[in-house]
Amino acid sequence: MPDLKYDVLGIGNAIVDVIARAEDDFLVQQKMPKGGMALIDEARAESIYDAMGPAVEISGGSAANTIVGVAGFGARAAFVGKVKDDELGRAFAHDIRAAGVTFDTPPAADGPSTARCYVMVTPDGERTMNTFLGAAQDLHPADVDPEMVAGAAIVYLEGYLWDPPHAKEAFRKAATIAHGAGRKVALTLSDAFCVGRYRAEFLDLIKTGTVDLVFANESELKSLYETADFDTAAAALRADARLAVVTRSEKGCVVIGKDATVVVPAAPIGKLVDATGAGDLFAAGFMFGMARGRDHKTSAQLGALAAAEVIQHIGARPEVSLKDLARQGGLPI
Amino acid sequence: MPDLKYDVLGIGNAIVDVIARAEDDFLVQQKMPKGGMALIDEARAESIYDAMGPAVEISGGSAANTIVGVAGFGARAAFVGKVKDDELGRAFAHDIRAAGVTFDTPPAADGPSTARCYVMVTPDGERTMNTFLGAAQDLHPADVDPEMVAGAAIVYLEGYLWDPPHAKEAFRKAATIAHGAGRKVALTLSDAFCVGRYRAEFLDLIKTGTVDLVFANESELKSLYETADFDTAAAALRADARLAVVTRSEKGCVVIGKDATVVVPAAPIGKLVDATGAGDLFAAGFMFGMARGRDHKTSAQLGALAAAEVIQHIGARPEVSLKDLARQGGLPI
Repeated sequence: MPDLKYDVLGIGNAIVDVIARAEDDFLVQQKMPKGGMALIDEARAESIYDAMGPAVEISGGSAANTIVGVAGFGARAAFVGKVKDDELGRAFAHDIRAAGVTFDTPPAADGPSTARCYVMVTPDGERTMNTFLGAAQDLHPADVDPEMVAGAAIVYLEGYLWDPPHAKEAFRKAATIAHGAGRKVALTLSDAFCVGRYRAEFLDLIKTGTVDLVFANESELKSLYETADFDTAAAALRADARLAVVTRSEKGCVVIGKDATVVVPAAPIGKLVDATGAGDLFAAGFMFGMARGRDHKTSAQLGALAAAEVIQHIGARPEVSLKDLARQGGLPI
Repeated sequence: MPDLKYDVLGIGNAIVDVIARAEDDFLVQQKMPKGGMALIDEARAESIYDAMGPAVEISGGSAANTIVGVAGFGARAAFVGKVKDDELGRAFAHDIRAAGVTFDTPPAADGPSTARCYVMVTPDGERTMNTFLGAAQDLHPADVDPEMVAGAAIVYLEGYLWDPPHAKEAFRKAATIAHGAGRKVALTLSDAFCVGRYRAEFLDLIKTGTVDLVFANESELKSLYETADFDTAAAALRADARLAVVTRSEKGCVVIGKDATVVVPAAPIGKLVDATGAGDLFAAGFMFGMARGRDHKTSAQLGALAAAEVIQHIGARPEVSLKDLARQGGLPI
């Protein structure tokens, strides 16, 4: 087995978030399903951008946010994802490296621009997303370095990788290398619409043990098993998955293992400002705990802590040191 | 006199802020004078960007922030400034238009990229700025539309316009047109280092009545008259200026007229998060009051209200409606 160089290596769509506040009326006018993530083409991207309010640009991308969170706890983290060599691509690369993450994927020299996610944050703090995949479309298996994957304790993959044409091959390649090197593979189901697009394939990944750890929120879980009943879906997931964590917003989370189920409450917050990144940062804390050999409960508490931090401000990346936050909260780091 | 189309027209450097949190140690290592604004070339910009932490990109520019604030109060506002036709330039144009500001200056098709200001926010909320002027260098007198200027009650100009080679000609052209049309001209001294660069010219603008209203903070005022004594400097400004407002951070402001001096306290805040834009937004509120025919005290209260909003979050543009805020605060709008 090669030396362990990283605690977590993430592979995902490299995206810059363009975040604006919006009223619920705006979502209705624009026919945006609230709380969801829609894929859009460049023409629609321009039309949304023209209509939306003043925005801020902050690096995002689901798996990228998670990996930044892992690094924020003080762990060794790396990311693989495709930007273009343009201003937003350079901002993405700067931000993730400045957060302490190894990021070596060469940017695309031509083709579509760096991926952007137009995020509308309604007054209730909920986020509604529209993603133009752009350069993220060009992530190929060749971008996955076998040595890097084999040197990571956990490889973390996002369900959104099923959207770009070749990224799922990169996903499968990474999973095969990781298991060949005795490493773990984690998957987030990303969002309920994504599960709707790729349900059969995601179930196959889980049932065949291609992934060892599954992250899902309540609506993704229900979409996966096409049921409105949480307990039914959770029982099905227990039967299918080696280990799974289901996040339930303010109700906390449920860690579903083969032997035991652990319920952990959400961490207290002041005001919900922007829900973007809640699930991403939960996964960061949980995997950080796992990488440090913590039990499920402690790992979930670390996840809850990170999620609570990120929803109290605009943007999906932590604004303070998660390591310090965990220390202040009496959690092991 | 042409019809009044705008309450305030601003002319300034069109800049995107790249904002990161930084410790005081970082400023020392990077030899950045705390609280100041330094002009940097592209090589230094890259070196700073490489060294600084994860950042967010938010449209900025001193006069542009002010004009967005004026629009936020519900007034008619326009801005003249030069971006390049690149990603950050398009973001700048989108954000200022989405805030309700008329912005028609054609972007530069080639030449340096859109101006960026690298803003380091230290734990005390103070901001330290490094500006790469980029495309803002290319603002020319031809970018100033005489009809637009003549149709604005107040033309607002920033001292920073003395930095790009041709922008001060644009400034002088606008001032001449405004006075020819019976309009008012306002100037902000921008920052103490800027005053140091152009002291004689700024004093000339004030003494000759080229500007009718001067905005300065305490350190700019002291720099202008090269004295450490506030009262001495204020007395000199009273003698030289038709009307001036000196902002003093948490001590509030002083409106210095020929006949009377009015002291107005700062508006209360929760926590100082990022001081960027405090002076800019004060000027917005004050000029909005003036444009609505309010007295000096009420205008200064509107300024204090806007400044208080912008320093309680990251970025120099208001995050909520200033109109609503003024209404809630019992101020006339």
